[in-house]
This record gives sequence, C-alpha cells and structure tokens, in this order.
Amino acid sequence: MITGKNCIAGEFIAKGKVEFRTINPKLNMENPTIFVEATKEEIGGAVDMAWEAFKVFRKMSGTKRAEFLNTIADEILALDQELVDTYMLESGLPEGRAVGERGRTVFQLRTFAELVAKEDWRENTFDAAQPDRKPLPKDDIRKTMIPLGPVAVFGASNFPLAYSTAGGDTASALAAGCPVIVKSHPMHAGTSELVATAIVKAAEKTGMPKGVFSSINGGIQAGVDLVNHPKVKAVGFTGSIAGGRALFDLASKREEPIPVFAEMGSINPVIITPNALAKRASEIAKTYAGSITLGTGQFCTNPGLLLTVQGYHTQEFIQELAKETIALDPQCMLHPNIKSGYEKKGENVTSQSGVTVVGKVEGTLEPNYAASVVATVSGADFLANPKLHQEVFGPFSMVVQCKNEAELLQIIEGLEGQLTGTIIAEKDDDMDLIELVDTLQNRVGRIIYNGVPTGVEVCPSMQHGGPYPASTDSRFTAVGIHAIKRWVRPVSYQSFPQELLPDHLKG
Amino acid sequence: MITGKNCIAGEFIAKGKVEFRTINPKLNMENPTIFVEATKEEIGGAVDMAWEAFKVFRKMSGTKRAEFLNTIADEILALDQELVDTYMLESGLPEGRAVGERGRTVFQLRTFAELVAKEDWRENTFDAAQPDRKPLPKDDIRKTMIPLGPVAVFGASNFPLAYSTAGGDTASALAAGCPVIVKSHPMHAGTSELVATAIVKAAEKTGMPKGVFSSINGGIQAGVDLVNHPKVKAVGFTGSIAGGRALFDLASKREEPIPVFAEMGSINPVIITPNALAKRASEIAKTYAGSITLGTGQFCTNPGLLLTVQGYHTQEFIQELAKETIALDPQCMLHPNIKSGYEKKGENVTSQSGVTVVGKVEGTLEPNYAASVVATVSGADFLANPKLHQEVFGPFSMVVQCKNEAELLQIIEGLEGQLTGTIIAEKDDDMDLIELVDTLQNRVGRIIYNGVPTGVEVCPSMQHGGPYPASTDSRFTAVGIHAIKRWVRPVSYQSFPQELLPDHLKG
Repeated sequence: MITGKNCIAGEFIAKGKVEFRTINPKLNMENPTIFVEATKEEIGGAVDMAWEAFKVFRKMSGTKRAEFLNTIADEILALDQELVDTYMLESGLPEGRAVGERGRTVFQLRTFAELVAKEDWRENTFDAAQPDRKPLPKDDIRKTMIPLGPVAVFGASNFPLAYSTAGGDTASALAAGCPVIVKSHPMHAGTSELVATAIVKAAEKTGMPKGVFSSINGGIQAGVDLVNHPKVKAVGFTGSIAGGRALFDLASKREEPIPVFAEMGSINPVIITPNALAKRASEIAKTYAGSITLGTGQFCTNPGLLLTVQGYHTQEFIQELAKETIALDPQCMLHPNIKSGYEKKGENVTSQSGVTVVGKVEGTLEPNYAASVVATVSGADFLANPKLHQEVFGPFSMVVQCKNEAELLQIIEGLEGQLTGTIIAEKDDDMDLIELVDTLQNRVGRIIYNGVPTGVEVCPSMQHGGPYPASTDSRFTAVGIHAIKRWVRPVSYQSFPQELLPDHLKG
Repeated sequence: MITGKNCIAGEFIAKGKVEFRTINPKLNMENPTIFVEATKEEIGGAVDMAWEAFKVFRKMSGTKRAEFLNTIADEILALDQELVDTYMLESGLPEGRAVGERGRTVFQLRTFAELVAKEDWRENTFDAAQPDRKPLPKDDIRKTMIPLGPVAVFGASNFPLAYSTAGGDTASALAAGCPVIVKSHPMHAGTSELVATAIVKAAEKTGMPKGVFSSINGGIQAGVDLVNHPKVKAVGFTGSIAGGRALFDLASKREEPIPVFAEMGSINPVIITPNALAKRASEIAKTYAGSITLGTGQFCTNPGLLLTVQGYHTQEFIQELAKETIALDPQCMLHPNIKSGYEKKGENVTSQSGVTVVGKVEGTLEPNYAASVVATVSGADFLANPKLHQEVFGPFSMVVQCKNEAELLQIIEGLEGQLTGTIIAEKDDDMDLIELVDTLQNRVGRIIYNGVPTGVEVCPSMQHGGPYPASTDSRFTAVGIHAIKRWVRPVSYQSFPQELLPDHLKG
C-alpha cells in the first residue's frame, strides 16, 4: 500500500531521481519501500495548489473544517494495524507507544475540531460606534482572527504521529484555515505516507479543495525549497537546534520574512532541594531513572540536567540514580544516526574537565540500543563550560553539584532557554522556593512542581515552547489549543455594514 | 532645561564625542541645543541596568505598574507648554496637532494602566487536576503571561509623542513588566528628552527601579548596538521599510534571535466603485483631498493608492480630486530629509512609463513645505511595474484606472502587505463586495468601509499592523490594548502548591 511517492494535492507523484529507504533500527536493516524525494517543481506545485486551496479553504465554515479534522482522525484509526506496524518498523518504538501516540494524535485533531466548530477561538473584539463623541465621533470597529496562508510543517523524528504528518502543527494549521504542506521526516516516510493517505481521503470525503494538503519526501534541499517558496506563509518545525535555526534563518532572509515556530533542543533542568533528598532520595532516584530513560530518552522534555546542592544526601542520591538508571533494560533508538549522535554528544560532554561518569550501561548492546548514562560535575565546572549545557539526545543525565543555593541560582540565570524546569522540594523547604520559581520561570516555558517533565498534557494551559533555543519564538506554544495562534493574525473591520461582515462578527 | 544628554537609568550622561542638533523645519534652521550621541558603553550600561531592573519590575503588582504609567501621563501633562513648543520647533507640526498627540499619548498610558491594574489581561488559563483519570492522572496546570525582558523602542519621526519616547510601544512594554530603552528619533531629540524626564520623575515618585527606563541619543550605530545587546529581548520600531528591515535582520542574526515588531511602509489602497463615483464623486474627492494631505501626508495610513474602474465618472473624479488636493494650503514637512525624500520618491514614481501627474502644487514654496501631488496610471501599467507600488511618504496619491473589476482584484491580490484597505461603495453596489472584502483582507490589517484610513482609533478592536512589509509580524498590533502581547509569553505551572503560584493564579 505504501508507494514511496510524494502526495501532491491528492495525487501520488514521483518524478525525481533521488531515492532513499527507511531503516528498521531494531533489525538494523533497511525497510523494503523505496521513497523518491520531491523535485523542486513538485514542491512548487504543492505550494501553488495550497495557495489556490487557501482562497476557498479560508472561507469555509468552522463546522466544515471541524468535519475535515474529525474525518482525518477517523481515517487514521481506520489504517488500524498497518499504521501501527509501519510505525514500529520505522522507529523501533514498541506497540504500546505507537497506539498511545496514535491516540494522542487523534485526540489533538478532535480537540482542534471542537475548538473551531465554534468561532470564539478567533478572539473576536467589538467596539461600538459613538457617533456623538467629541471632538471626533468613534466608528464601529470589530476585530477577528484570519489564517496566514499555506503552512510548511516539518515532521519530527521522535514523534512519527503526534508531531508529524497529522500532528499538532498540521492539526492547528488546518483548524485555522491554513493549507498544509508537510515535509515528512525521512526516518519514517512510510508512516507519514500512510497518514497522508488518511488526510487525502478525509479531504475528499468532506469536500475540501485538493491543495489543502500535500506531503513531500526529501531532505535538506526539499526543506529549503519549501521554506523559500513565496506562497508559504509560516513554518512549523520540531527537531534539533541546528535544523530549526537553519529554517529560521532562511525564513528571516526571504524578501517577505515569515514566522517560524521551531521547537528545538532543551535539557530541562530539574532542581532537587537538600530537604527533598533528605526525605526521599530513593524515591526521587527511581522516578527520575524512569523519566530519563522513557522512550529511550528521546523526548523534548527529557530531564538532562539535575541541579543539586552539596549536602549529606547528594552522593547517596547520585549513586542511587545511577544504579536505578542502568538497572533498566536498554532500549532501541529511532535510527542509527540518532544512536551515533547520542554516543558522540555524550562523549563530548563526559570528556570535559571535571565530569565523572557515575553510571553507564556496560557490555555489548544490540545495534542501535542506547547505553544509559548518569554523569556528575561541580557547579563551578558547569558554570565555566557551556559545552556541558548541550543536549545529549537520549537516556543521558548530568547531575550538577552546586556548592550552595546562590551558585544554583546563578546556574539557572545563565542557562539557555528551556522547555521546562522542575522543582523537587518539600513543603517547608529551607530553600527560598519563591525566588527559585521567579528565577526559573525566566528561563523556561513550563515549571513542574514535584513531578517529571516528560509527559506533555494536551490541554489549554499547556505551554510547550520556551525562550530560545527551546523555541524560536517563546510567545507561542506547539501543544494545546493556543497552538492555533501561530497561524493566524488579527484583521479589523471599521464601519462595516452587517451584510459584509463575517457571520461571527455580525450583530 | 533640555541638556542634550542621554538619560541612562535616571542619570543624564554624555561622554560621547558625536554631536548633533535638531532642525526647525519651518525656519529651515538648526535648533540651539547640542545633543550628544550615546557611546557603546553608555548603551551597554542602560541595558545592564534594565536587566537588573527587570528582576524587580517583573514581580511588581499590576496596580504598582499602573500607578507608574498614570504618573508618567501626569508628568507629561505637567511639562505643559514647554513640551508643546519643543514639539513644534522640532517637527514643524502645528500646536493643535501637538496638543492632540499629547492627548493620545496620555490616553494610551492611562489605557494600559487600566488594563494591567487587573490581572485578566494575562489570559490566565486553568486546567483542573483529574487524579482518577485513566490510564494516567491529569495534573493541575495553570498558565499565565510573563514579560520577555528589556525592550528596545525606536521613536518614530512622524509621531514625536504618541509613537516615540512614551508612546504605544513604551506604554505597552512597561505595562507588561518590561523595562524600556528608547532610542530617541534624532529629528526630535529635545521632545524625547523632555518626555524622558517625565518618565524618570514618575519612576522616582512611584518607587520603580532606576533601570526601568533609559533614553539614548544616536543614529544607526546606536540602534545596532542596542539591538545586538544580549540582554535586550524584543524590539519595537515605527518607521521606514529600510530601517525596520535592518533592525529585523540584525535581531534575526543574533545568537539568540529576538522578536521585532516593526511597523513600516504602507500605501493603504482605497477601492472606489463606479457606483460610488456615480453618486458622490465630488464628496469623495473632497474627503480624500483632506485625507491625502492630513499631517502633510506623513501618516502611516495615508491613502497613497486609489483604485478605480474606468467608467463614466472616473475622469471627472480624478480631475476633481486633483483640484481639491492642490487647493489646500501646502504644509511643512517634518525635516529637510523628509522633504527631499518626498520629492525624490515622488519623481521616481511619476517618471515611470504611463504615469500622468494630474495635479501638483506649483510655484515656489517655503523650504520644507511639500507640494501635494495627484497622479494617475492604468491598471495594466501598475500591474507591470512594482516601482509604482512604493510608498511616497508625504501628500502624494496615485489613482489607478483598472479596465475592469477582474483587473482591480488582480492588483489587490498582487499588492504587498498593507496596514489598511478601504472600500468606498454603495449599498447595492454592482461590484461583488463580498469577494472584494475577502481579497482585500488577505493583504491588509484593517478594512475601512466608506471612510478614510487616516485616524487610528486607540481601542481594543484596532489592528495597526499587517502583512509584510506593513509590519514584520502581522500577528501583532502596535495600537490598542493587544499591543501588550508583543512583549509577553506564556508560562505554565504544573502541580503547583498554592503558596508558590502568582497571586492571580491562586484559588
């Protein structure tokens, strides 16, 4: 059923010459399907069709777009075991995760459907006329949100469903009335194609214009061609800092710059107070061993940095964390490139002055399986060496031993922007938690109290984003209904007669 | 009273060597005060102080920030005639305009004070915990908006008060909890210094940290140094496309890119239907002659482009518009550079193939007074030549004669992004107004029906911004309470105990 072709406005096309295959990381061998990268002409065709579709799609009612989104969800579920199997073959992730992520994807689509079925998401604002105001009368002015135009979405390697072809970026952009062109992630091009067929079917069933959705295969060049196309009006990306920044730079240099929301690297600092360690070092170690290794550490919100203050229980905790972490069965990573990146970046960090590896899974592992690592360093060394701040994407965590609370606060203040920050503390903690929250919130998008950063709830109050480099624009979120704000802009109607106003501004 | 020095965190300092004076455009001579440009060190000092102030200012209550804003308004009014006189001497604008713009400035400050005195502007969102949810419990999550950090504000040449030192950018940034560093516009550095003293007094009276506000003198290099400073976290600008784009490019290339809201050029298309011309050509001509020449055409929303469809009344209207426009007394422009730019850009446009000047004020004018111009061109020539789309900042307007409605729509579709679009039509117009609105709204931030684009009401429904190059980010506005959204970002608190939540998220 998977063709390996590009899905251009409902047609499966492959005129290009560059081919590739996905890899089954568990077997460490290529999957059979041959994928063909999109040519520049095919990409141009997809965007041109998206532009034409935009003229119709932007005028459709919210209930119509909701029907489209709900039908995409239905069609994804109808792919049934084929989708789950392809997902597993291309990612090495287990079936439970595939099913769970599919559930999240479907939930996101239905949430955005529910949101846009009514028009109040548009933040409609009304100013009544004051014809008798002095010195000048005031006009009737009404404001609402309208879609930006075609959006380019880049699938994430680590979430083949929920942050890829029909993931949060696509769902929120379609909800807003923006056609979408996805560049599928080359690591799971088959999963992407299956989801693309579901979207195409849903578009046909609900009478959407053909160009409302396209999905192209390709690597860096395809991404460049897509972002540089003048009719692309915004970009959504989830992935590495290098990749996201490259797209941001391209988009900023265009004749007409366009907004890029790139959700990128984060080491998600966790502050553990001495009181918390005194009371429950073992429990924290166990919980965090689970969080560090969850999904083979391949989550954006993986806790890569644990900040402690030297004290009676610090050494005990670090030893226990290492023991608990390496006791967990090693798991498969998404791809050989991710595995080699994990090892290289891990070595870059552990070879720095002052860093001690406290625990590392030893012995020969299956190819593409990751050896979990817990390392430690002093606060002074961490402060002095920005290389230690870099993300090691995988089951890796660094415990920093600060000499006191002031040094800990200094480290937080100097940290690069992060998706999350976590505080593990006690009720009547000796640490000034108010100050800690104030300092931490200036560096992160979300603060968790006595929990783990992994697990990103899809709900209105969720902020998934943060100061650079966690994201390219901290004013937006990739998760939750407010993710739609990335793709819309306000427009005001002044002194309009009722019959020319959009329905939701009438009255 | 005006020292010519830089106002760095409450101190008036001038260690630099580069001096300049402002110009009285009506007398075409320099004003006496010598201003000293800020050095890189002084700029760095201002930003460092802003950063320190941010740590305190961001935690202050909304009522405290409101008190600060209201006191700034009081202190500006207390400057009384000295401010009005300085404004006139530096801008060539009349007293009525000075007083009116001061009123607008004060109104904006008080509006933002009222907004932030309560905390609901923060778009607080609450998700209740669901401890019994299956398969996983849901945590309590709450979201609110927090300030980004120090904001650099660039004063506009054409609004020495309302879009400059204590203008909308400064008022909204301070309201959000962001310290502000203003680069005053060199054309009205004295006006800026007076307003800076008002802000400094207000900061002292209301107990603000010293670094909450600074104002520096300078040109391009000062702007570069300011935007490149790592502790500046956002930029507000009103001015030319070249200036705004340069700042945007700088900000995008930083190690940590920062958001720039630049409100830039716009020719504000006005569509006049044949039915409207048939019924009230004279009235429209008279109204638009007033709008084109208002403030010597030096408004962002000046109607530089009138789109008509050839018909019985088109020629009559164009002649009448020219007659009415040149009948109005020529007025003074802001500065000799603005005047020479007006003439040069006007000639660039009127010398293009197919362009006819229908009316131009003739004879010798006072230096820096602008000769109003009405020109006309065919739809075909306008479509073929993007040079005709360029803004001529001043009392200039181009009437495009489209051969039919389709050509008019094609012109709108191909237009660069605009602040406003206006439709002048009749109740049962023969033109498809629904389609016209749909096409126009995709290119503009605000649509006016049977009115003029000049006059930007300060109210919640106002959108002042638009697709590039009208602004660098069409998702935000420079006017109205929502202007605060440019300077804030969401942060989520997950599983937080009441005592650690901000007051407005408790309960």
